[in-house]
Amino acid sequence: MSGRPPRITLLTDFGTADGYVAAMKGVIAAILPGAIIDDASHDIPPGDVHAASWALDAYWHLYPAGTVHVVVVDPGVGSARRALALEVDRRFIIAPDNGIVTAALRRAPLARAVEIRTPHRLRDTVSATFHGRDVFAPAAAHIATGAPLEELGPPVTDPVLIALPEPARTRASVAGTVVHVDRFGNLVTNIPAADVRGGAVAVGARRRIPVVRTYADVPSGECAALIGSRGALEVSVRDGSAAEVLAAERGTVVVWSADGSAGTPADAAPEF
Amino acid sequence: MSGRPPRITLLTDFGTADGYVAAMKGVIAAILPGAIIDDASHDIPPGDVHAASWALDAYWHLYPAGTVHVVVVDPGVGSARRALALEVDRRFIIAPDNGIVTAALRRAPLARAVEIRTPHRLRDTVSATFHGRDVFAPAAAHIATGAPLEELGPPVTDPVLIALPEPARTRASVAGTVVHVDRFGNLVTNIPAADVRGGAVAVGARRRIPVVRTYADVPSGECAALIGSRGALEVSVRDGSAAEVLAAERGTVVVWSADGSAGTPADAAPEF
Amino acid sequence: MSGRPPRITLLTDFGTADGYVAAMKGVIAAILPGAIIDDASHDIPPGDVHAASWALDAYWHLYPAGTVHVVVVDPGVGSARRALALEVDRRFIIAPDNGIVTAALRRAPLARAVEIRTPHRLRDTVSATFHGRDVFAPAAAHIATGAPLEELGPPVTDPVLIALPEPARTRASVAGTVVHVDRFGNLVTNIPAADVRGGAVAVGARRRIPVVRTYADVPSGECAALIGSRGALEVSVRDGSAAEVLAAERGTVVVWSADGSAGTPADAAPEF
Repeated sequence: MSGRPPRITLLTDFGTADGYVAAMKGVIAAILPGAIIDDASHDIPPGDVHAASWALDAYWHLYPAGTVHVVVVDPGVGSARRALALEVDRRFIIAPDNGIVTAALRRAPLARAVEIRTPHRLRDTVSATFHGRDVFAPAAAHIATGAPLEELGPPVTDPVLIALPEPARTRASVAGTVVHVDRFGNLVTNIPAADVRGGAVAVGARRRIPVVRTYADVPSGECAALIGSRGALEVSVRDGSAAEVLAAERGTVVVWSADGSAGTPADAAPEF
Repeated sequence: MSGRPPRITLLTDFGTADGYVAAMKGVIAAILPGAIIDDASHDIPPGDVHAASWALDAYWHLYPAGTVHVVVVDPGVGSARRALALEVDRRFIIAPDNGIVTAALRRAPLARAVEIRTPHRLRDTVSATFHGRDVFAPAAAHIATGAPLEELGPPVTDPVLIALPEPARTRASVAGTVVHVDRFGNLVTNIPAADVRGGAVAVGARRRIPVVRTYADVPSGECAALIGSRGALEVSVRDGSAAEVLAAERGTVVVWSADGSAGTPADAAPEF
Repeated sequence: MSGRPPRITLLTDFGTADGYVAAMKGVIAAILPGAIIDDASHDIPPGDVHAASWALDAYWHLYPAGTVHVVVVDPGVGSARRALALEVDRRFIIAPDNGIVTAALRRAPLARAVEIRTPHRLRDTVSATFHGRDVFAPAAAHIATGAPLEELGPPVTDPVLIALPEPARTRASVAGTVVHVDRFGNLVTNIPAADVRGGAVAVGARRRIPVVRTYADVPSGECAALIGSRGALEVSVRDGSAAEVLAAERGTVVVWSADGSAGTPADAAPEF
């Protein structure tokens, strides 16, 4: 640790008003009184593992080596799902084994993982409904003290992954899907920057949305496509919400082509 | 303090967008530049002293000894209500004297309390409307520096307590009430775990909700009762909101019995 | 720095659920592993530079000298708008050049400012859409390390300011406007305390709202005017929302006079 305070981040779907998040912080501080605890978010939609996986991948790798990232979006709490501690690219991720780490493990390979179950590394009494406090927080604090991962439990080599849609490429177009809608209504797709050579996109019935460099390249209220901060194609409305204007959501198809005229079969012949 | 940074938590109903919470943090940091300030929550429903009391009791005792917990849900700011600093089980709680500490004082006895009013421990000018910044934050920082509680003002032995409903026990049933509805719609009752020996519960017209170990013991969408993370009976809907499904809220009666058939007189003959 | 951890505050309109804020924290922590990062707010209404300017001025000056305040409410991201680092009263403010610093610069004069553009002080790749992560966070961390402001880029002497309404004074009255509506529905005006000598106020058709010392001076549900925590006249409803009761919003005219009977021409003869 060498004089530098341990740093732990928290990502949950708990909100804060019930005191559940503060309970996790208290457990960590009791083990590691000097720990700096950064809130990543507590506003993940309840139970939305996809959203948590996406948000986590925005930041886990930007923190310095040694950081411990705790993620508790855990609809299966109390079931047989495992509790995991993973090492990825010299950072640690503590999370239920429900696919939350999928996006992170696409960015960097899994170095090591264990199932958290060593009793003296947990709280004395483990509730059936709040593993954030009783399992994940104490495990995170122990790792942040520098304790070896292996002390937490037996090795795991097969963390659960969630299926992520892949873009479909033809000679003239790339059909992707919206994988995240952010607070501003931007539609983040799974089409990587490398697939986008100028051109334009179609979303539903709307065609020829131009690919530009940044929001400011189109007038206020206009649709634009651009390479976003995650290195993927995004569709935006300047000073507005693309999700609203285009009636799009996670899963909506977005098609890139040289002139933005290519749509999907479903778009061409909508039957629903 | 011995090299370990002082730690202060904040619980308010201020939201964050107005900068009021950041003003409190600034006042604390100006007095104690190395203080670690943990947000507990700023999303307590405005003026809801019951909710604040319940949330505080989720975490205050989990933090290490010496932690200073600041709670500002203060509909009476500017009135004659006292500002208090309390020591309970080696932690400190700084709060308006409106009953916020009730749940904490059920968990552990009051060690000492004072009324905060020593002028040089407050901000130079104390506004009539923002004691979070002008009274509670500086008092918290002074206590976190290790200053004796007594420096803040004269002793208090009678902090205001709020009336909390008690469960009513008969030979065959326990009638409690919902004391908190959490973000997931779980109904937390005042029926302690010790009263629950298997059995089932009734909420309003709905009878025979089984007591199980955890959410995962019932199918998705089904009601279940279980011992929650606070050591009390909770009623939940797996992957759903019990508050919505059962049309329940704080104050709703929940009755436990061996087969969950017992209701309340009001349930049997609703007249309102 | 002398053993005291650097302290950085963050104010954005990002929300937290997308991981954008955590990405900024990660970038800061990677440069300054011991930095304490305080959330001011991430709930500024999207793109609302006025609200951000107002919130910032609630706290920036209360923090100790040396604090670095980062503000990212940046509808012009990716356009030609400058990124600024300012020194004001021994604190630093890092923000897009869109007027966010207006309220702060009314409180204290600008000491120095630079345009942030030295490449090796930014992230290796600067996205077109997320300067919070790629420009403002690294710049803040570098300043918090004690690096001279001048290393970030060339001097700036003309930061953009936003026009703020000024109260209009007659012999018998002061006509101001609501400059902020807070979470509790309080209407904060631009009428300074010095203009208010007892008297009463008019808001729209409602006249003779008494100026009192604090909320508790009127019965629950009643309107009151008082000097708020920012040193300006505020209009409140005890245990209620003045914004709702008075149908007021930012920009609504509030008129102070000795008896609160003075209104505005528009109030006298509403034509819309």
